[in-house]
Amino acid sequence: MVSAKMSDPKVWKTCVGAMVNLIEEAAFKFAPDGVRMKAMDPSHVALVDFELPAAAFSEYAVKQPVTLGINLTEMDKILSRAKADDELVLELDEKTNRLAVAFRGASTRRLSLPLIDVREAELQEPKIPFTASAEILAGIIQDGLKDAELISDNVRFEINEEGFFITAEGDRGSTELKLGKGDKGLLKLSVKERARAMFSIKYLTDMTKAAGSAEVIKISLGTNLPIQLDYPIAAGVGKLRFLLAPRVEAE
Amino acid sequence: MVSAKMSDPKVWKTCVGAMVNLIEEAAFKFAPDGVRMKAMDPSHVALVDFELPAAAFSEYAVKQPVTLGINLTEMDKILSRAKADDELVLELDEKTNRLAVAFRGASTRRLSLPLIDVREAELQEPKIPFTASAEILAGIIQDGLKDAELISDNVRFEINEEGFFITAEGDRGSTELKLGKGDKGLLKLSVKERARAMFSIKYLTDMTKAAGSAEVIKISLGTNLPIQLDYPIAAGVGKLRFLLAPRVEAE
Amino acid sequence: MVSAKMSDPKVWKTCVGAMVNLIEEAAFKFAPDGVRMKAMDPSHVALVDFELPAAAFSEYAVKQPVTLGINLTEMDKILSRAKADDELVLELDEKTNRLAVAFRGASTRRLSLPLIDVREAELQEPKIPFTASAEILAGIIQDGLKDAELISDNVRFEINEEGFFITAEGDRGSTELKLGKGDKGLLKLSVKERARAMFSIKYLTDMTKAAGSAEVIKISLGTNLPIQLDYPIAAGVGKLRFLLAPRVEAE
Repeated sequence: MVSAKMSDPKVWKTCVGAMVNLIEEAAFKFAPDGVRMKAMDPSHVALVDFELPAAAFSEYAVKQPVTLGINLTEMDKILSRAKADDELVLELDEKTNRLAVAFRGASTRRLSLPLIDVREAELQEPKIPFTASAEILAGIIQDGLKDAELISDNVRFEINEEGFFITAEGDRGSTELKLGKGDKGLLKLSVKERARAMFSIKYLTDMTKAAGSAEVIKISLGTNLPIQLDYPIAAGVGKLRFLLAPRVEAE
Repeated sequence: MVSAKMSDPKVWKTCVGAMVNLIEEAAFKFAPDGVRMKAMDPSHVALVDFELPAAAFSEYAVKQPVTLGINLTEMDKILSRAKADDELVLELDEKTNRLAVAFRGASTRRLSLPLIDVREAELQEPKIPFTASAEILAGIIQDGLKDAELISDNVRFEINEEGFFITAEGDRGSTELKLGKGDKGLLKLSVKERARAMFSIKYLTDMTKAAGSAEVIKISLGTNLPIQLDYPIAAGVGKLRFLLAPRVEAE
Repeated sequence: MVSAKMSDPKVWKTCVGAMVNLIEEAAFKFAPDGVRMKAMDPSHVALVDFELPAAAFSEYAVKQPVTLGINLTEMDKILSRAKADDELVLELDEKTNRLAVAFRGASTRRLSLPLIDVREAELQEPKIPFTASAEILAGIIQDGLKDAELISDNVRFEINEEGFFITAEGDRGSTELKLGKGDKGLLKLSVKERARAMFSIKYLTDMTKAAGSAEVIKISLGTNLPIQLDYPIAAGVGKLRFLLAPRVEAE
């Protein structure tokens, strides 16, 4: 039995919206203490790690752990039908082997999608020796990526004592975003050692575009190491983490 | 002589916007007591019935009945140029054989379109033994149709003692909208006998998409009978009615 | 050395946005007293004349006159990244031969584009014997052009004692916009002699679409003469002028 209720559909909408461009199918593990999902994109460049404890739901009833294979494209379409005031209910319909997503608002709408077989990979999240991190408004990161997109496919992220930087360089010009200490959009800065690495703009855009511009994203960085993006979902109770491998940077 | 003035262009904009996807050419009969138009779509699945009495206009001067053949696509483009505060004036220019649509607002704009020959069909509106009806906010119907569209081309409408239902079923899942007694969006429910029938989503979407989400649509239904949609246009003085034949439903 | 600062990026955004559809490359002359640019479109039908005196900038430092060749499409993309509250800084980076456009707001963003070689034409602005002029809200002109676009590629502008008129005629109908004396959108009317001429809708649309609907455009007209459009940019300190040759009109 799986039945989980939330007063706000936004958490699922944001998370699935951020995952859907990276991975097509996901195995969500519904356990008595909450929901977990971990997956890599097909090219093994990006990793998604999602956790939503039972406490993040207003009602949560899962007796036995069960893994639900979900086509994220279909799930995303269904969640896009949510309205801001709707209450969200997820329910497993064992008879039909479907996940029912119900929206309770002006009317009660129930959209259900067939469950699919998804091979569960046993993914070990790598331990990465980040040397710097920053908490930044999502809108700032989105702006820096859109600027960079004008002239390149790749972007360099850097965190140092002065602040956070997004730079790009191409035949058509260059772009630089600087978010310095004291700037409003920089909520925290922590630097053991200057860190910088280059990444695919497309991946970073996909990972950040579902976030509201005023939401906070924590970036962890190390020189030529993968980047880690953490969203504090469901008021910090849940976890949505992305890891993205760096591009080799000729210097 | 035909000259008709309204303080709000919305009535014509909504009506023509709802018709334009079903029928291409329409014969509007301007008579001393008001305007009438009745037409079937080319595949004879849908019927439009439109009436706007003289009382719906702020000024109305038609001496002799005259039938104006209008290309609805062109008329819709012209009406889309209306601004919310504009006053609308329709005038027959007999010399050029054109209908002039004037918008009086910040400036006076006059867009005129050539009249065309449209064969006037003598359409008898069928007498249908509906067994149930409901008055529903247009936005609710639009939501149910958009949900259903995700997984099918057809949708089932049902009215019973519990309320109003829109359901769809397909390989990619199923959707159900329930609007129960007591729900805000259900303004009236009248059931002699449970009624349900299946319809094309495309047709229903075309018929309802020009309505504002807070406007009320009256649905009349009978099992495997055509559906009737009534819009209370011009504060109930006018009438816009659609009839749509059901799809055969294997049960 | 070139460094110029404005508290509002809108002036450049509007001007470059209005030019970009007419000319692809422009030679901006930065002199100690301000910036100038004059260019014709490739088909020699339209002329752009742009002047922004040093006084229009909050800070302006240009020691020696220098001409910067700029690809307007790239410049427009960069300016489209400006946010309403951003401060704009233009700077010549002589080492890399690039123009840097910096936006200072929530973060500091610096987008730079390579300078190009642009042949500087010595354009003499023609002296045209206009016989009438009008100052009009841009939104009114935009509306008249959009109306006319429904049925034709050409539009007739007329200024006479009664007011300002935009008319079009085609197989699919006709449109007329009348902005009379006393109408709010007509800020000034000056008529020595009735003036009318026909122009390409596409060109006029390109020239006016970057303007906010509440901005004022001054139109100067003479019968079968070019039309002159003046924007009072930077609170009247600057100048953006378009001249467009008339189409031969069979009468």
